[in-house]
Amino acid sequence: MTPPTESGDDQPTGDATFEAACRHARRAAVLSSVEALLGWDEQTMMPAAAAPHRADQAAELAAVTHRLRTDPAQGERLAELATGSLATSGTPRQQATIRLLKRDFDKQSRLPGRLVEELARTCVEAQQAWALARAESSWQRLQPWLERVFALKREQAACQAPGCDAYDALLDDYEPGARWRAIVPRFASLRRGIVTLVRQCADAAIRPDDRLLTESVFPVDDQRRFVREVAARIGFDFDRGRLDTTNHPFCSTLGPGDCRITTRWDERSLPTALFGVLHEAGHGMYEQGLPPNWYGLPPGEAASLGIHESQSRLWENLVGRSRAFWEWCFPSARAAFPAALGAADAAGVHAALLAVKPSFIRVEADEVTYNLHVMMRFDLERAVVHGDLPVPELPGAWNERFEADFGLRPPDDARGVLQDIHWSVGLVGYFPTYTLGNIYAAQLMAAARRRIPDLDPCFAAGRFRPLLDWLRQEIHTTGRLLESEPLVERATGQPVSEHWLLDSLRERYAPAHGL
Amino acid sequence: MTPPTESGDDQPTGDATFEAACRHARRAAVLSSVEALLGWDEQTMMPAAAAPHRADQAAELAAVTHRLRTDPAQGERLAELATGSLATSGTPRQQATIRLLKRDFDKQSRLPGRLVEELARTCVEAQQAWALARAESSWQRLQPWLERVFALKREQAACQAPGCDAYDALLDDYEPGARWRAIVPRFASLRRGIVTLVRQCADAAIRPDDRLLTESVFPVDDQRRFVREVAARIGFDFDRGRLDTTNHPFCSTLGPGDCRITTRWDERSLPTALFGVLHEAGHGMYEQGLPPNWYGLPPGEAASLGIHESQSRLWENLVGRSRAFWEWCFPSARAAFPAALGAADAAGVHAALLAVKPSFIRVEADEVTYNLHVMMRFDLERAVVHGDLPVPELPGAWNERFEADFGLRPPDDARGVLQDIHWSVGLVGYFPTYTLGNIYAAQLMAAARRRIPDLDPCFAAGRFRPLLDWLRQEIHTTGRLLESEPLVERATGQPVSEHWLLDSLRERYAPAHGL
Repeated sequence: MTPPTESGDDQPTGDATFEAACRHARRAAVLSSVEALLGWDEQTMMPAAAAPHRADQAAELAAVTHRLRTDPAQGERLAELATGSLATSGTPRQQATIRLLKRDFDKQSRLPGRLVEELARTCVEAQQAWALARAESSWQRLQPWLERVFALKREQAACQAPGCDAYDALLDDYEPGARWRAIVPRFASLRRGIVTLVRQCADAAIRPDDRLLTESVFPVDDQRRFVREVAARIGFDFDRGRLDTTNHPFCSTLGPGDCRITTRWDERSLPTALFGVLHEAGHGMYEQGLPPNWYGLPPGEAASLGIHESQSRLWENLVGRSRAFWEWCFPSARAAFPAALGAADAAGVHAALLAVKPSFIRVEADEVTYNLHVMMRFDLERAVVHGDLPVPELPGAWNERFEADFGLRPPDDARGVLQDIHWSVGLVGYFPTYTLGNIYAAQLMAAARRRIPDLDPCFAAGRFRPLLDWLRQEIHTTGRLLESEPLVERATGQPVSEHWLLDSLRERYAPAHGL
Repeated sequence: MTPPTESGDDQPTGDATFEAACRHARRAAVLSSVEALLGWDEQTMMPAAAAPHRADQAAELAAVTHRLRTDPAQGERLAELATGSLATSGTPRQQATIRLLKRDFDKQSRLPGRLVEELARTCVEAQQAWALARAESSWQRLQPWLERVFALKREQAACQAPGCDAYDALLDDYEPGARWRAIVPRFASLRRGIVTLVRQCADAAIRPDDRLLTESVFPVDDQRRFVREVAARIGFDFDRGRLDTTNHPFCSTLGPGDCRITTRWDERSLPTALFGVLHEAGHGMYEQGLPPNWYGLPPGEAASLGIHESQSRLWENLVGRSRAFWEWCFPSARAAFPAALGAADAAGVHAALLAVKPSFIRVEADEVTYNLHVMMRFDLERAVVHGDLPVPELPGAWNERFEADFGLRPPDDARGVLQDIHWSVGLVGYFPTYTLGNIYAAQLMAAARRRIPDLDPCFAAGRFRPLLDWLRQEIHTTGRLLESEPLVERATGQPVSEHWLLDSLRERYAPAHGL
């Protein structure tokens, strides 16, 4: 399959209905980007006392956006376009715009406005409850909110895709076209490989030690300067973005030219902010690489969250934890943190980054055990959505599964079931995209290495542009024209397979452990 | 006149139309508070590249809010209520709610949605042009935008109050009930007194010297901590607010529990941030003192911008520049800035704060010359609105008037006509509220001194609660039930007069200059 031609795609079609439908969709996207600002602000800036009002704002705006998104006049335009000549004879972008706007419209139209408003409001309130619950490690504080959220999400699934599997209906919001029954065997195969590798690493003669990066002092102000420089160097454009502080890092795009990444800081641990920011910058560079003149329309939108995550994990792990990256990065790091790293070298930092150690917190997990965290959440949330696991039993199920997978029992719920924000903000069906992203990232990186000569020498020289350009060309500029698997297959020339991820982990972690 | 009784005001009336009208108005207020977030973010956080998209967001949301505000169903409710029994037999708050919601509705309904949207978009774009124009001191860059803004504002005035004076129509948005013909003689009298005082100060034997506060180094991080402590001490509630950095300081309320003040920092000048923050905190405490359960309705809204400014100027000047305040504040200031203030004392700081010196920038002006800046803008903008001064002639008119008033000619437009953000964001008719606020502040402070025994000893002990409580009771909790003059008259027991401001300036500045 060849990429859609660019030429002419952004020219007016002369089709008044198409232009009107695009204008309407863009207006909805603009309002939706205001919702994104409400969310960004809530998690970075807003005083806690403002939470009830923020819930009102989110609900009110969600209702307005939903009304616009489901405006019957837009439905008529899209129905007309779907059977018109542009739907089959237009450029690939025009065809995709018609097809996907119609798909989105039909899906949105099946959701009652009341439910949209209630979800928006509940998720703001539940998120505040989550923050308190986590701080106090108090499951009881969150439980009623999660019961409410899961009930609303099940209602959403039933409206959105009546007669379909409820989990697939939710998953489709994040990974269009994905089905849990297809994910389960892929994850099972991955899981077997990872469990073996974790066991081998645990029994290995060499045990990389991360204390160099987690037991010295890395002053937060110095970290701020350092990670900002690194993010800019790999290609995050700060003229069109920001970096802020939050509890649960994320990347949010508020419009073309306004992509905001966030991180948290730990004075005792450089990786927390550094890899957090590499990760979010990976998301951000994807957003910054989408075609800005298609903003608010499918060709200007991300393909899926799995593809999104492939970009973040690629920069975080496959670039940021590579030996070549540290050849370039180490001198800056030593200059930024002379007390902590004055006696270290690039090889030492690189070795420290390959420590494999079961731990409680997903976002702090090493690259190998990380996917075990994700797969466990995928199974648990699916059980809740399918009615096989009542919400009140989540903490018990969590701890049991965690002990089985990691050989450890969470000492409290803050380090267990309360650690992630996702469920409280209604992100149900979202977790599997993390591991799908890791799979895509490994496959993409292997292809990049085949296509771009001297990738490691580039990294060692601080040149990340060749890789970013390749990703822009193969992934970013395609927008939402292809679903995840066809997109990765086109970029890599091979069917999607988890073996790339297993190979990548083995290739890097086995030698580091003397295996 | 006695204050409206509180009891029963917040109880349901049992009047379904009233409840529905209030719900509707609150929804519009909630959307409007999202517009406030767009504005706050634009001036504190947003990457510059996002300006075009922010204009789209502001325009889209303004249109949505305007449609809600002018919904014919709400018009019918208000018409019914205006002739119903609650309009005359309800509590004062209920009566005012009906009267003012109807007044606002009728005014809004006279504005075409197209104009509202265009104003919102133009003002975002013009503000970005203003920031660049000021940075480059390039009037040419701003001129076309100001021509556009003034044209739109004149159109707004003509729609809003057909057949009325255009300037009064705009002024009414900020100072309900005010008329420029009534302001002119009041300002003329004030002007005579101030010009005399400025001349006396210039010729005085003692010339207070502010170099103690403007020529040392006050590290910005230390200023941040210090001014935050001071703002909290006078009563700004940081649990329901924030303090951020901006170019042109302002206070913005995003909802009950979310009041955000901003400042700029100058390492060489402590007063820039300190008095800026006292000023904005004064605005903020007014907002934080409005009845939260009337949020979005007239009893929960500020009376006017003049009253708003009376609160900010009272805390900035009448508290913050008082000798008693510095008895309390000085030890903290010396501890925060040992290098700059180690050898100073409270009397020295207080004396330095009373320097009178003509200068170019309004927001950095001393308290005495400040009103000359304002009155000049009031005259210039009125001339533009009345068609007596074409926008391209503004810089010339500005410089001429400035030289006449201050005996100095601005060296460039950045220190002249380009210094204020107001006109570029559509705030035309706004400037006089600054001096009206100073007048109200002086009259209120004189009354507070009569009513509260030992106000100075309170300040000297760092106790600001008695003053804040009095302001809460006399001003804040009344919301918009009274217009500015009746409100000040009720609080002080005397008709509004500029003589309080002149007396207050003379009483404090004459002795400081040995007059």
